[in-house]
Amino acid sequence: MYEVKVYVMYKESILDPQGEAVKSAIHRLGYDEIQEVRMGKYFEMKVTKKEKSFIEKRIEEICDRLLANVTMESYQYEIMEAR
Amino acid sequence: MYEVKVYVMYKESILDPQGEAVKSAIHRLGYDEIQEVRMGKYFEMKVTKKEKSFIEKRIEEICDRLLANVTMESYQYEIMEAR
Repeated sequence: MYEVKVYVMYKESILDPQGEAVKSAIHRLGYDEIQEVRMGKYFEMKVTKKEKSFIEKRIEEICDRLLANVTMESYQYEIMEAR
Repeated sequence: MYEVKVYVMYKESILDPQGEAVKSAIHRLGYDEIQEVRMGKYFEMKVTKKEKSFIEKRIEEICDRLLANVTMESYQYEIMEAR
């Protein structure tokens, strides 16, 4: 089995209103050392073991079609062997 | 400066309805090798450089007070030196 982690974030050029809101809340609590916050989505998946290059291709398809809006968001993923 | 990454997920024992919904959508698209999906929140922060142990303490406070609902969610973080 593989364990796959996917991170989806707004692209750098896109304003991230959730991250801005979280930053304001952090500052209201007095944590002034936090300069910037960006917020994204995180997915952990368990995947049936097959050829790794096949799984990479499939994960990219799932990200492109479902998990990320590639116009505004970028994604990264890690595939690890598990068990 | 530090770059801090924080991952917040429902605890294993808590049902994750968003993850279940994403899994169903993935299966409807025909990606049957995906066995399990859990969805969480991901934060990237830029933090002013101070003593690392101090920053660890502050990040844990921010997670406990603001980013995670520790009754239902668990979090992990990584602190990396940047620039």
